[in-house]
Amino acid sequence: MDKATLRQRLQHVGETMYHHLHPFHLRMHAGELTRGQMQAWVLNRYYYQSCIPIKDAIILSKSDDAAFRRAWRKRIIDHDGDAGVGGIEKWLQLAEAAGLERDYVIRGHAILPGVRYAVDAYVNLVREGTLLEAVSSSLTELFAGNLIALRMDALAKYYPWLQHGLAYFQGRLTQAPEDAAFAFEYAAEHATTPQMQALVIRSLQRKCSLLWAQLDALQYCYVEPGSMPPQPFIFQPEAQ
Amino acid sequence: MDKATLRQRLQHVGETMYHHLHPFHLRMHAGELTRGQMQAWVLNRYYYQSCIPIKDAIILSKSDDAAFRRAWRKRIIDHDGDAGVGGIEKWLQLAEAAGLERDYVIRGHAILPGVRYAVDAYVNLVREGTLLEAVSSSLTELFAGNLIALRMDALAKYYPWLQHGLAYFQGRLTQAPEDAAFAFEYAAEHATTPQMQALVIRSLQRKCSLLWAQLDALQYCYVEPGSMPPQPFIFQPEAQ
Repeated sequence: MDKATLRQRLQHVGETMYHHLHPFHLRMHAGELTRGQMQAWVLNRYYYQSCIPIKDAIILSKSDDAAFRRAWRKRIIDHDGDAGVGGIEKWLQLAEAAGLERDYVIRGHAILPGVRYAVDAYVNLVREGTLLEAVSSSLTELFAGNLIALRMDALAKYYPWLQHGLAYFQGRLTQAPEDAAFAFEYAAEHATTPQMQALVIRSLQRKCSLLWAQLDALQYCYVEPGSMPPQPFIFQPEAQ
Repeated sequence: MDKATLRQRLQHVGETMYHHLHPFHLRMHAGELTRGQMQAWVLNRYYYQSCIPIKDAIILSKSDDAAFRRAWRKRIIDHDGDAGVGGIEKWLQLAEAAGLERDYVIRGHAILPGVRYAVDAYVNLVREGTLLEAVSSSLTELFAGNLIALRMDALAKYYPWLQHGLAYFQGRLTQAPEDAAFAFEYAAEHATTPQMQALVIRSLQRKCSLLWAQLDALQYCYVEPGSMPPQPFIFQPEAQ
């Protein structure tokens, strides 16, 4: 498979499996979610955000190439912050704009179990996989730009009470395409056999499943509830 | 907390969080699931069954007490088989009675991602926890006997086409109470501080969540579908 064909195959995975297709996101972007449902999303998605620098540190730890590590550490800095405010802090600002208490979000005891299992599975995929698989799992960022642009329009239009919390998405509009381009170049260069190229595609598919499962948990609990999990502490929109 | 109080606290967790309350099981036991939905359950639950001896081997590996290891290894033998047929083989017989191909079940590529994440989270809980936490996570077996007895009646009554696949449940009727009694005695003896007793309870709660999340994934995909996961290979009842 040449580089253009690999890119097409990855694109096809994104078009069929990325979570822009999930009913939770379709509802969000059509303005159909309630304030409580949006709060549940912001709260649960914080757990994902909080694990991103951890998985990027694992990726750093797998490389013996200082040039690669210098390039990849940008992601940790973007997320944890440096001179400026990082992505995690910006997500907390989004949570506060949504009416959630910062400490409640950070404590994380209200996270849905299904979200936690999927996020932890992502960290474990990166921990247990090869460097090529770990890098490839980040290729969902190839598709993040479009989703974020769509989302920013939808949030401004339908959920104006979130307007002071959108800095996270603003930052990702430029970061995600840069990060994706670097990861794709790395994968294209290092996947030198058909088996390794198949692993790159498989890794992207697995990441899509991990993102999808997080929204399944939200959808099933808060939008089309089949049952509330009997866990104590689960976020209850009414209680906020 | 004395031993009787600890037992009561564990009982309360079971009564409020064990998966006998899950809508998927309520429907199953009321005879309301279709053959395809039952197949999906048998197929997905196989992944859980196949990981049980792995988690029990991790528990063995955490103990420096040969007497404990001799007692606990019974579970691995029960499940993997010895002179007789083990639990995993019996589950495959259930799958065949349900009309599934043995190799298709073993291959496992049709397992729902949400089920896989939850089962993997269980193995990781056992891997990363203390021996006391790992043993305590098995205390769901305190409640398994009642559920299995109820299930055997319901399966015989409503799903008679499964009648040649019920050996697994027959075996568990006696194994589960024995195993639970041993694990409870261990936990009661070794949880010597309030903090350790709280960990025992927390470990049982976490296990209940892991079982619950597996049924959530089935319910959301096959009973009250919000969306079919876009993953290739997912079990499709129609295609069987």
